[in-house]
Amino acid sequence: MKLKGLSIIGWKSTGNQGATFHGVNPSTGAAIEPAFTSATAHEVDSAARLAHHAFLEYESTSGAQRANFLREVAVQLETDAEAIVRRAFEETALPVPRLQSEMGRTCFQLRLFADLVQEGSWVDARIDRGDPSRQPVPKPDVRSMLRPLGPVAVFGSSNFPLAFSVAGGDTASALAAGCPVIVKAHPAHQGTSERVGTAILKAARHTQMPEGIFSLLFDAGFEVAKELVRHPLIKAVGFTGSRQGGLSLLEIARSRPEPIPVYAEMGSINPVILLPDAVQTRGREIADGLHASVTLGVGQFCTNPGLVLMENNGDAAPFLNELVRLMASTPAATMLSEAIASAYRNGLQAFSSIPGVDVRAAGLSNGPAQAAPALFTAGGSVFLSRPELMNEIFGPATLVVLCEGRQELRSAIGRLEGQLTVSLHATDKDLSSGGDLVKQLEGAAGRIVFNGFPTGVEVGHAMVHGGPFPATSDGRSTSVGTRAIERFARSVCYQNFPEALLPAELQESNPRGIRRLVDGKWAH
Amino acid sequence: MKLKGLSIIGWKSTGNQGATFHGVNPSTGAAIEPAFTSATAHEVDSAARLAHHAFLEYESTSGAQRANFLREVAVQLETDAEAIVRRAFEETALPVPRLQSEMGRTCFQLRLFADLVQEGSWVDARIDRGDPSRQPVPKPDVRSMLRPLGPVAVFGSSNFPLAFSVAGGDTASALAAGCPVIVKAHPAHQGTSERVGTAILKAARHTQMPEGIFSLLFDAGFEVAKELVRHPLIKAVGFTGSRQGGLSLLEIARSRPEPIPVYAEMGSINPVILLPDAVQTRGREIADGLHASVTLGVGQFCTNPGLVLMENNGDAAPFLNELVRLMASTPAATMLSEAIASAYRNGLQAFSSIPGVDVRAAGLSNGPAQAAPALFTAGGSVFLSRPELMNEIFGPATLVVLCEGRQELRSAIGRLEGQLTVSLHATDKDLSSGGDLVKQLEGAAGRIVFNGFPTGVEVGHAMVHGGPFPATSDGRSTSVGTRAIERFARSVCYQNFPEALLPAELQESNPRGIRRLVDGKWAH
Repeated sequence: MKLKGLSIIGWKSTGNQGATFHGVNPSTGAAIEPAFTSATAHEVDSAARLAHHAFLEYESTSGAQRANFLREVAVQLETDAEAIVRRAFEETALPVPRLQSEMGRTCFQLRLFADLVQEGSWVDARIDRGDPSRQPVPKPDVRSMLRPLGPVAVFGSSNFPLAFSVAGGDTASALAAGCPVIVKAHPAHQGTSERVGTAILKAARHTQMPEGIFSLLFDAGFEVAKELVRHPLIKAVGFTGSRQGGLSLLEIARSRPEPIPVYAEMGSINPVILLPDAVQTRGREIADGLHASVTLGVGQFCTNPGLVLMENNGDAAPFLNELVRLMASTPAATMLSEAIASAYRNGLQAFSSIPGVDVRAAGLSNGPAQAAPALFTAGGSVFLSRPELMNEIFGPATLVVLCEGRQELRSAIGRLEGQLTVSLHATDKDLSSGGDLVKQLEGAAGRIVFNGFPTGVEVGHAMVHGGPFPATSDGRSTSVGTRAIERFARSVCYQNFPEALLPAELQESNPRGIRRLVDGKWAH
Repeated sequence: MKLKGLSIIGWKSTGNQGATFHGVNPSTGAAIEPAFTSATAHEVDSAARLAHHAFLEYESTSGAQRANFLREVAVQLETDAEAIVRRAFEETALPVPRLQSEMGRTCFQLRLFADLVQEGSWVDARIDRGDPSRQPVPKPDVRSMLRPLGPVAVFGSSNFPLAFSVAGGDTASALAAGCPVIVKAHPAHQGTSERVGTAILKAARHTQMPEGIFSLLFDAGFEVAKELVRHPLIKAVGFTGSRQGGLSLLEIARSRPEPIPVYAEMGSINPVILLPDAVQTRGREIADGLHASVTLGVGQFCTNPGLVLMENNGDAAPFLNELVRLMASTPAATMLSEAIASAYRNGLQAFSSIPGVDVRAAGLSNGPAQAAPALFTAGGSVFLSRPELMNEIFGPATLVVLCEGRQELRSAIGRLEGQLTVSLHATDKDLSSGGDLVKQLEGAAGRIVFNGFPTGVEVGHAMVHGGPFPATSDGRSTSVGTRAIERFARSVCYQNFPEALLPAELQESNPRGIRRLVDGKWAH
């Protein structure tokens, strides 16, 4: 297929009036064909109206129908996988094997949500049967279940052109819940986005989904994002990206006459806490693992460990020396874009200029969009007095804070903002004197990793990829794993309804065969 | 016990520096002894710090321990029930039988949450077991469950001095979740609040709960509310009251460096939709039920039906005549306070002055805090052109909108703001031509009542007392029923944790015997 460079609105590719722009190959700095056309406010409105009409039909589809659609999206992606990966490599410089594995993850997610909604029990169906003879007033028959919110706006992320973009986790979970999706493509990988969007469109047509269930909008700037989040027919927002970007969308959503939920995953510094006996007994292994986690994918993960907290004792120096050796010997690599590489270099510069922060490794980089790993150290008192050391430097950099004793370590942990993850390295000996650390960590993060590293987010039922503000805009949610579907639904309650008017999931005969809470007991 | 008129902070009654104020008996206008002392900013801070320390201990209590505490609160309330009800009657003018039944409901709620947390499965425990041999990377062991957010601020409501106040649904669900609670008492029933707060305190001591698990603050103004919601150690807010009050708290919570969730139930007009055949065949019965629902408790319910939408055909006039007769013959009664009665009269005045709105019943009222039922009618086109007709008039008033045909009725429904409830009266004949109305209603409300009326909110597992903005500040939540506990918790994920460090709910041996999702299958 030849790329058109046009937005996809319902079944049509459109866009003749917007400004055009080119993507850039980060490895070469060269423009990539074709030019893409920004969507107009009118096109945003068309997409939202189509999505609203599609919703009226789509919300009533069965789980099996939605599952069929989601699985067909995976099939269509796999059919075009080679071209999608090739284009994504050109646009993002992410290595082909990584992109292939990201494609696998994207299809896995789609099928996981397909299985979830085909089975159907996710709707949390509850039935409290009535009792007309109850005194002093009859007890009504009350039934409730999760219902989809309506059309959802999803924002493609820069660092996951597949798994957190057009057909990524937000899209899969919203479609699974019964919500049409309008994606605003990330401008760093429009060609990839158009290819993936076209695959979704094909799947929608093959499975007889209503027009408007999916649209894809391009924009070089921020106007489409604003129009989309402001639009009264949009009922929720999914976003993965920077804190600044997430907070802007949140502000727009809150200022609407009808505020809507925004699920913004805004990254974090994913602290790694090293207790003394772990460093003494496994220092080299930890240095190896930490180095691998910090530099994986040129550090371009929301779960990249940007902060290490440890005690400054005799074992710290050999550990640090090993880590310095590993970081300094890792070559520079190409980041997703020159803008991201430039932000990375600015971040390094800002840390370097803070008194008390030592630069222990800062490899040279040259060429556009290049970044070399960097390692900083600072004392605990410096960290405690300079909150800007908690700022995320998106890229392969980390700061090791050397605390004077357990008390200072505890203080540093107590100062942490909300995080996606916190990792704890500890031996039994460490834990015998600090087991309650875990309780302190629970309050700070969505996921706690024991004797491991935060990169690599397993997609499953139990995963939580979320965490207290500012890691996300809604600390009660996750954007990875099956729980993500709950973000796009709310409970609706039906009182004294005749059987025929109830959704199938709540009918007495349980025609969908789902697990339900009936008079306080879970039953199949 | 003799009332002290002082805030309860941890185990102590304090408050010597704040301004003092008296409650007023709405039936007589007379001040009620004793004077109450407003809490100071320092006292708010003390309560929040104590709550935070209590949280570190309380969050680790078992469901059985929390259940024991909640049940003891119910026992202590029942022990003092007679005095509590007597005082509540003096402060609110709500009839004694109503207050007795509200006391029963309050204790029922406490025991319902006790049962829920004793059983324990509410935490949504999920386990995805690891696979160290998986290629290309080992699969981690990932486990997650709901954990409490931290100290919660609860605001007492004016219209439910027991069931939505100091020991009401918000308090019960937050305590059940594992969150300490700080209640800001409603100034219209401080004596009741002190008595109920004292009962909670006794229960906390009897069951060895940590100091600070509960505090109660008095204030004649808004300073305590502001300080409380701003306080960095407060992690969520529960509120039932006016839209203005709810939105103010929401704004404060959003402006914090760390925004927190606010669950504000801000009332609604609970539209009742009457389809033609239902009016023709059951008009008199509907008029009876509607009148009872509008005037119940002097109309002082969040679920009071303030709007009726019907078609203007030959059956409308006899129905309306009957409703007018019933409304006009219902005597005035005492509202919760003169301020509320005055707001009611202003609301009636505002509706009366809109061209095209007819006053069909507006009984005279005299004496302080008195209100008589009122009935308005308007044409569909008037309703569609005057959005202020959707404003809530808190009290025994309703507006019947007579629509010219089904299309105008549909337009009026399409215009509705988010509601707690919508009620639909329809026969099979009505439904054969308008069954898809239900789908339209689902988008507008948290609960849909079929051939019934919205007042009377059954406490159970399936109830949803919530609804899209502006009915609540978070349309995904309910403040009644067991789902309410989910408001005060978030999922926390544990990766590759040793058994001994996991919460009991996630340990392999399932020592709590709860229902869990293990490798994608629900298991006990």
